[in-house]
Amino acid sequence: MTVRFGLLGAGRIGKVHAKAVMGDANAKLVAVTDAMPAAAQAIADQYGCDVRSMEAILAATDIDAVVICTPTDTHADLIEAFVKAGKAVFCEKPIDLSLDRVKSCLEVVRAHKGTLMVGFNRRFDPHFQAVRAEIDKGTIGDVEMAVITSRDPGAPPVEYIARSGGIFRDMTIHDFDMARFLLGEEIAEVSAMAAVLVDQAIGKEGDFDSVQVMLKTASGRQAMISNSRRATYGYDQRIEVHGSKGAVSAENQRPVSIEVATGAGYTRPPLHDFFMTRYTEAYGAEIASFIAALSSGKPAAPSGEDGLIALALAEAALKSVAEGRTVKMSEIL
Amino acid sequence: MTVRFGLLGAGRIGKVHAKAVMGDANAKLVAVTDAMPAAAQAIADQYGCDVRSMEAILAATDIDAVVICTPTDTHADLIEAFVKAGKAVFCEKPIDLSLDRVKSCLEVVRAHKGTLMVGFNRRFDPHFQAVRAEIDKGTIGDVEMAVITSRDPGAPPVEYIARSGGIFRDMTIHDFDMARFLLGEEIAEVSAMAAVLVDQAIGKEGDFDSVQVMLKTASGRQAMISNSRRATYGYDQRIEVHGSKGAVSAENQRPVSIEVATGAGYTRPPLHDFFMTRYTEAYGAEIASFIAALSSGKPAAPSGEDGLIALALAEAALKSVAEGRTVKMSEIL
Amino acid sequence: MTVRFGLLGAGRIGKVHAKAVMGDANAKLVAVTDAMPAAAQAIADQYGCDVRSMEAILAATDIDAVVICTPTDTHADLIEAFVKAGKAVFCEKPIDLSLDRVKSCLEVVRAHKGTLMVGFNRRFDPHFQAVRAEIDKGTIGDVEMAVITSRDPGAPPVEYIARSGGIFRDMTIHDFDMARFLLGEEIAEVSAMAAVLVDQAIGKEGDFDSVQVMLKTASGRQAMISNSRRATYGYDQRIEVHGSKGAVSAENQRPVSIEVATGAGYTRPPLHDFFMTRYTEAYGAEIASFIAALSSGKPAAPSGEDGLIALALAEAALKSVAEGRTVKMSEIL
Amino acid sequence: MTVRFGLLGAGRIGKVHAKAVMGDANAKLVAVTDAMPAAAQAIADQYGCDVRSMEAILAATDIDAVVICTPTDTHADLIEAFVKAGKAVFCEKPIDLSLDRVKSCLEVVRAHKGTLMVGFNRRFDPHFQAVRAEIDKGTIGDVEMAVITSRDPGAPPVEYIARSGGIFRDMTIHDFDMARFLLGEEIAEVSAMAAVLVDQAIGKEGDFDSVQVMLKTASGRQAMISNSRRATYGYDQRIEVHGSKGAVSAENQRPVSIEVATGAGYTRPPLHDFFMTRYTEAYGAEIASFIAALSSGKPAAPSGEDGLIALALAEAALKSVAEGRTVKMSEIL
Repeated sequence: MTVRFGLLGAGRIGKVHAKAVMGDANAKLVAVTDAMPAAAQAIADQYGCDVRSMEAILAATDIDAVVICTPTDTHADLIEAFVKAGKAVFCEKPIDLSLDRVKSCLEVVRAHKGTLMVGFNRRFDPHFQAVRAEIDKGTIGDVEMAVITSRDPGAPPVEYIARSGGIFRDMTIHDFDMARFLLGEEIAEVSAMAAVLVDQAIGKEGDFDSVQVMLKTASGRQAMISNSRRATYGYDQRIEVHGSKGAVSAENQRPVSIEVATGAGYTRPPLHDFFMTRYTEAYGAEIASFIAALSSGKPAAPSGEDGLIALALAEAALKSVAEGRTVKMSEIL
Repeated sequence: MTVRFGLLGAGRIGKVHAKAVMGDANAKLVAVTDAMPAAAQAIADQYGCDVRSMEAILAATDIDAVVICTPTDTHADLIEAFVKAGKAVFCEKPIDLSLDRVKSCLEVVRAHKGTLMVGFNRRFDPHFQAVRAEIDKGTIGDVEMAVITSRDPGAPPVEYIARSGGIFRDMTIHDFDMARFLLGEEIAEVSAMAAVLVDQAIGKEGDFDSVQVMLKTASGRQAMISNSRRATYGYDQRIEVHGSKGAVSAENQRPVSIEVATGAGYTRPPLHDFFMTRYTEAYGAEIASFIAALSSGKPAAPSGEDGLIALALAEAALKSVAEGRTVKMSEIL
Repeated sequence: MTVRFGLLGAGRIGKVHAKAVMGDANAKLVAVTDAMPAAAQAIADQYGCDVRSMEAILAATDIDAVVICTPTDTHADLIEAFVKAGKAVFCEKPIDLSLDRVKSCLEVVRAHKGTLMVGFNRRFDPHFQAVRAEIDKGTIGDVEMAVITSRDPGAPPVEYIARSGGIFRDMTIHDFDMARFLLGEEIAEVSAMAAVLVDQAIGKEGDFDSVQVMLKTASGRQAMISNSRRATYGYDQRIEVHGSKGAVSAENQRPVSIEVATGAGYTRPPLHDFFMTRYTEAYGAEIASFIAALSSGKPAAPSGEDGLIALALAEAALKSVAEGRTVKMSEIL
Repeated sequence: MTVRFGLLGAGRIGKVHAKAVMGDANAKLVAVTDAMPAAAQAIADQYGCDVRSMEAILAATDIDAVVICTPTDTHADLIEAFVKAGKAVFCEKPIDLSLDRVKSCLEVVRAHKGTLMVGFNRRFDPHFQAVRAEIDKGTIGDVEMAVITSRDPGAPPVEYIARSGGIFRDMTIHDFDMARFLLGEEIAEVSAMAAVLVDQAIGKEGDFDSVQVMLKTASGRQAMISNSRRATYGYDQRIEVHGSKGAVSAENQRPVSIEVATGAGYTRPPLHDFFMTRYTEAYGAEIASFIAALSSGKPAAPSGEDGLIALALAEAALKSVAEGRTVKMSEIL
């Protein structure tokens, strides 16, 4: 079975997904739409698909699934519309910045027995998958404590910060999802600390650029997250999990693995400096997983619920910072 | 000038310090005392020093300084007695498990203008010293966030736990001191989470074996600590510091640096499995630093105040766990 | 300008090159041919190109260049035929197992001012390219000594050995080319040692499976090569270059970068176990370089001469083993 | 039993051995002698031993063993004299620069059933010992191929070169011994290449500063050695052994294990810059091994024969360079 795709949004991330769809033998890109006709046309030219209007894609009988890469504030409406139209939906995170809006959207998905997968791409990174695979094999015994270090190469423009929902909803949300992926249990408690150390303009927007979070499950499993909006040495993305029988970790990735030795020491190159080069393989594997789920009829994951919980963890972290206390997830969801 | 030493306590750590004193060209071990005469005699035989009573060492005119390696509940009394006797004092951490007792002890030290150095050996590890040296050189710019991972090879016997004051006062206390060493600013806020995942018997004593702590200074500098009482792969002791211009980290240490490659992968040996082999160089450098301070008349560090603050951080962590909130250090000290 | 390609040979390596051609925006795969029609048809189906006879491709006016992936004993004849037909030729190494045949083939290429590039894929590996780039930047000063370690995951079937020309012509030839790539000077002297340690059946064919070679240029620059047909830990491919100001090296590559720590030590996964996964990026970059040369009119490299010299180095190594002496390249070429 | 030592030669390496003797619970330094009385006195003052004349030590009844650290041209005579006097002898390498003189010396040792251990310190390095231990455990199966990289931080003064016997007898000799230690079989064939790349003054003395050597045993086991007199990044000392079931290697050693990450990449400090700091542990373990052999009555190793063979390998390498051919060890010994 070939899954026939419509692509909603032809920007930077839309192009990544278009390539992933075209590279999958079980999928085909049928049409693309974008508010900027030129952007849609560029993808159409490259892959030989149609440019259509959003309405036409919604009504199309030759399209089984859509990939939503439009601005965040359109996600929930589009999910509802396409689920109602009977199409499977892959949506970039987040579903929405409002927890209530996410909840109501997921109710619509459930009511229509829709298929919704949310784009937490890091779960599909081959290195992180290998970490999870070792846990599943029992190599490290029972999972006890995770440490997640996640730093961006550089802070985004302040105008982006304003729209992003802030560091916890925009950046840490990936680490919240990763913590759940690694701990294998629901988070029960959240404590966070936050500061502005990188760019005072971010502070003026009411956001932070340097934060740390602790998480705990009901059984006592723990995770720590360290986030900064700026790392001079590249895109710092490390995970490690400590368990009763051992530990497993994924190292940082760099474009080339060489080492130069001089009187100044032994130097390896900086890390990847961009999320798209760091997670190239993850983006491909993510769409392949969506296609495989559709083909097999198995549930697509991460689900809308996963998207909801990660956002709720961000809410809890914000509340923890504001109130100077450990927040129970039962207060949020 | 040769510093003439008395050694109080001839147990495991006493032997380490005896060796350090004897290995230093500017020091001499004059006498040793211990509640177990055979233990004192063994050191006397090895290094050709006297066995004397505690009282005799206190009264001795041929002894300039003492190293206190007796049980914790004797530390504060001995510090006071020897400071009053005009001797310089090096005391193993902690000064006492009670914050009030530590405070009153330090008052006595101050009143007598005594010299007191507290044994936070890790500050003298050459790798951690090299990390600090890079910070001081400005290599990483302004310090922003530290991550400290500290795991023992195995949990101590439960009877030790009972006497130790618990994981925060006994184990994390080293990491609290290290966080201060690395951040270069006083800690203002503490949040901690704790669980029993390794040994339920530890939980029955009212203690924890798996904890994580977040710290923050007034200016927003942050540190995270992850502790477990048991790591199957050895004594896991890592620090890393992220700053405005870069980051610096110290790797784990192992007895030998070989790598075996087979069909199962590339394997390096486990880490050191004992704090004394891991920190051999640190113990020597620590006593050398004490001797150098005495010889030069400069202050010995870490000081009694450093001991007090590390203990106060442990108190704050306990309070944070108990009350489910971020604790301000101004509440404790 | 779009370079229009014919693919000669639809086997394992033919598929790799077909994919590389299709992935290049400046190239197009027009037709494929193979002695096995089904193999050609599979590629045609996948990429929407024609299946044609060898004669038809030779005569085609809609084909600018060919990629030769047929058996070795056809290479020289095909190069001559296609160069005469005015087509640019990319040919898998080796041009031929006979030095004389290679020489006569290159004369034909020269006589027709043909374009010939030989497939030494490793020069295009991003890690090895980064090593070369550091040399070019002057980071290590003058190149002095190279060490090349090259081990296959497992010995090929004995019947392959018989056709391959032996380990020096088939396997070490890549390392000879790499030595020239790294030293930046022509090799003047060769000394080799060889043994059968892996598989006695290889010895019965008159070949070796474990060899080491030393090379020296006229100015005294040196390289060492260590080859084995079998490494249990994967495809071992390392280079390092020592110079007057420092050294540079490329590490081995593995599919995923994780590390598992247990009581048995710290283990990373084995290396890639297949040359095609190890050199995936190199194969793509190699064809891209050919296409870029054709588009720009610049010479394609490595050239037929490079292929000739690498084969001559293999001849010299064989002679060195047979005669127990250092062989001068002036004796061979 | 306590082994009572005389130390012959109180220079740089004499001090290292004096410290090793004093640090061993089963040994005692009784007397020291040196052509420079002040040097001997300094050691006597530090360790509380006598300064005596060479004759007095030779005649002493309170000395069981001597450590010879005098200039190379005195070694053979002193070995003979002290063996005749019934004392066990530890002698720094080499026994002599002349193969004939070494042979006649060893005959005297044999005739008097003397004990002679030669100072190939690297065999006692804990990392190299761990490599050998893995081989002995069978982890890598049958040993097949070794690669030894050995580079000094900087070339010695030219006047030293003149006295040293040249790079093969002075520097590579350690690697020849290491190759034998790793291969576990006698070397049958030697091929070498040599050049002057570091310092032309070395060439004027008739010596080389950049050499590479290949070795082979009768069964086909192979080793390669790469030597340079100058490495800007420190004292480069690596070994690796490839076998039928896997491989094992020892990494380089550096004073501190930190890593600094900046926009320029990830940098670890340079290596040790001096053989004494690199091989501190080896020097201690070497003397401890000599003492243990004397105490247990077991043979001391490496033996005089090991010293002879390593020197013979140096002769073979020189002959190989001079004659441009592979030299059989049966031609030398």
